[in-house]
Amino acid sequence: MKTNKIIESMLNHRSIRKWKQEPIGEEIVGILLEVANRTSTSNGLLQSSIIRITDQKKKDQIVKISKQAYLATAPELFIFVADNFRNDRILAEGNSATNFAADGDRFLQGITDSAIMAQNVVNAAESLGLGVVYFGSVLNEPRRLIELLKLPERTMPVIAVGIGYPDQEPQLKPRIHLETRVFENEYKVFDNYHEELKEYDEELQEYYDLRDANRRVDSFTKQVKDKLSLQSETRAEYFELAKERGYEI
Amino acid sequence: MKTNKIIESMLNHRSIRKWKQEPIGEEIVGILLEVANRTSTSNGLLQSSIIRITDQKKKDQIVKISKQAYLATAPELFIFVADNFRNDRILAEGNSATNFAADGDRFLQGITDSAIMAQNVVNAAESLGLGVVYFGSVLNEPRRLIELLKLPERTMPVIAVGIGYPDQEPQLKPRIHLETRVFENEYKVFDNYHEELKEYDEELQEYYDLRDANRRVDSFTKQVKDKLSLQSETRAEYFELAKERGYEI
Repeated sequence: MKTNKIIESMLNHRSIRKWKQEPIGEEIVGILLEVANRTSTSNGLLQSSIIRITDQKKKDQIVKISKQAYLATAPELFIFVADNFRNDRILAEGNSATNFAADGDRFLQGITDSAIMAQNVVNAAESLGLGVVYFGSVLNEPRRLIELLKLPERTMPVIAVGIGYPDQEPQLKPRIHLETRVFENEYKVFDNYHEELKEYDEELQEYYDLRDANRRVDSFTKQVKDKLSLQSETRAEYFELAKERGYEI
Repeated sequence: MKTNKIIESMLNHRSIRKWKQEPIGEEIVGILLEVANRTSTSNGLLQSSIIRITDQKKKDQIVKISKQAYLATAPELFIFVADNFRNDRILAEGNSATNFAADGDRFLQGITDSAIMAQNVVNAAESLGLGVVYFGSVLNEPRRLIELLKLPERTMPVIAVGIGYPDQEPQLKPRIHLETRVFENEYKVFDNYHEELKEYDEELQEYYDLRDANRRVDSFTKQVKDKLSLQSETRAEYFELAKERGYEI
C-alpha cells in the first residue's frame, strides 16, 4: 500500500476537544496562517479571511453562542469568513459601473474558499502533532457572532477551528461504507437506506464519544432522525441573513 | 522553523492543468477515497458525496459546461456534492413528523462538508506526488451538470477536482500579504484597498500564468475589477436553483 505519514495521519483523524493549557507558539501560528493563505482560491479572487481570536473575553463571549464550554479553552481559535467585502471595496474605489462582487456565484466561492482554507490549517496543524476540532457551533447565532467580530456587510462567518496540543486520545470513529457515499459517473439512489446502512449503524454503536463519557453513541440513522427532526431557527436563517448583509443570492 | 514535508508541499501548492496520460491506479484512488470519507463532517451527518467520473464521454460532456478542454484529460475527476438527500430519505423512511434535512443550516453544512473533503483529497494526492486542480467551472451551468450526474433533489454539486501525474511545472503564484487577510479578534476595514494592495499588485504582475503562455498576469485589483464587473447568470442563480431542488433556505 502506497501510503505515507500525512495520509496515515488523515486516516487517523479524530476531533480533539481537550488541549494542554499551553500556547502553540507564534512561529507555529505563523506557519498555519501561511498555509491558509497558500490554499487554492476560486478564480484567484481570495474571497476568504481569518479572524484569529486571542482575546480570552471574546472567546468567552463566543462560548455563549456555541454553548460548548471547551471552546474557551482552545489555545488557538480561528474563524474563517467568506469575504466578498474586500473585492466589493476594490470595485467601489474604481467606480465600476457594475459590481457583482457578492452574487450567488461569488458567495458560494467565498464559502468554499473559507472551508478549504480551514481544512488546510487542520492538516498542517495535525502534521505538527497538534489536535484540532471544527466548531460549527459558532454559527448557532450568526448575528451575534457577526457583531462580536465586527464583520462588515458582504461577509459571513463559515466555520471555526480550535487548535492546541492534545490532552486526550479519542477512539477512531467508524465511517459510512464507501459504496453509499461514492458513486461512479452518476448518483445512485438506494431503495432502502436503513437496510443499506445497517452494518454501519451497528459499527457506530460500538463507538464511545468522549463527550458523553462511557456512553455508546446511537446508530447513524437514529442520530439523523433525532438531529434533523428539529430545527434551530437562528441557524436555519443563514442565507436569509446573508441577503440582509448585501449578498444578492 | 518547525516545518515538515507536508507543510512544505502545502506552501508549494500550484494548480496542475497538464497531466501525464496514464492512470493513477485503483489502489491510489482507493486511498484518496478513504481519506475523503475520513474527513471531518458537521454533526457527524455525512452531508456530502462524491461522483467519480470514469466515463470519457461524460468527461467530454462536462467540458461543454466548463469550457476548459484540459478537464477531459484529467486522469481522475471527482465531483463533490452537498448531499442532503440521503438523510432526507432516512427521515422519510422513519415517517418523521418533521424533517429539516435540507434547511439553510444543513445546506451550508453540506457545502462545507463537500469542500473540506475536496481539500483533504487534494492534500493526500499532492503528498503522493500527484498534481491537482480545482474545477469551479463545472458550475458554469449547474442545471446541466445536475442532469448529467443524475443528482436527486436536495443535492447540489459544489466543487470538482482533477488529479493525475503532473506534466508541467508552473511558477508559484504570489499571495496577498497576511495583514490584509488575517485579523485579530475583529475584522479590520482599510481606508483604501488599492493603496493597501499596491505591493501585492506589483508582485502578481511578475507572475506568468501557464494558461496564457508567456503573458504576465494583471494586477490583483485589475483582475478583481475585470472579473467582478461581469456576471454569469447561470452561475449566479446557484441558490435559487437550490431552492427549486428542495432546499428550504
